[in-house]
Amino acid sequence: MTDCIFCKIIKGEIPAKFVYQDELMVGFYDISPKAPVHVLVMPKKHLESLRSVNDGEKDLMGEVILTVHNVAKKLGIDKGGYKVVINNGEGAGQLVFHLHLHLLGGWNKSPGWQV
Amino acid sequence: MTDCIFCKIIKGEIPAKFVYQDELMVGFYDISPKAPVHVLVMPKKHLESLRSVNDGEKDLMGEVILTVHNVAKKLGIDKGGYKVVINNGEGAGQLVFHLHLHLLGGWNKSPGWQV
Repeated sequence: MTDCIFCKIIKGEIPAKFVYQDELMVGFYDISPKAPVHVLVMPKKHLESLRSVNDGEKDLMGEVILTVHNVAKKLGIDKGGYKVVINNGEGAGQLVFHLHLHLLGGWNKSPGWQV
Repeated sequence: MTDCIFCKIIKGEIPAKFVYQDELMVGFYDISPKAPVHVLVMPKKHLESLRSVNDGEKDLMGEVILTVHNVAKKLGIDKGGYKVVINNGEGAGQLVFHLHLHLLGGWNKSPGWQV
């Protein structure tokens, strides 16, 4: 997608602070962090949101879940606990329409908000 | 797990308002909803959190992501937008230690909170 800001970050056309990269996935810091550690993990493949995922993406979805945990481990926030948030659609607060998982953690005691 | 409240719900030993059930997955309403629609979707298999998932569960993780979207569609909250939240560990607000995905939606305008 030529107009997608995350696709541009993935292609290196816009800078970001990467924490993870492999053939299928990337992870980089959110520029407006909502937690002491706030990273976005996503497939390189442009999918708008979970609403545009079908059975053919099952493998990729399994991979992104495993990746988000691996990134949490790499950043040392797995033991203290972490949240994963996926916003799907404008009405749910999605701002960039390239499917991404928010990985949040690193709190001193607790997140201070609960779902 | 004999002491797990979600395992007991899955086995029918404790009542819950189910919205989805298949061989591998269940979905039922959260008893303390944080959104107009708040459902918990999870594998029947007892896994504590994403922290206890390994490569062998990749397929199951792909399946749970597809399931959460199918449940959103079934409940008619996909078009308006929905959030998926996974709390991993006590420090992230996890209350029941059986991996589950919070599916939240059905807001009139917006969730009123943002991550």
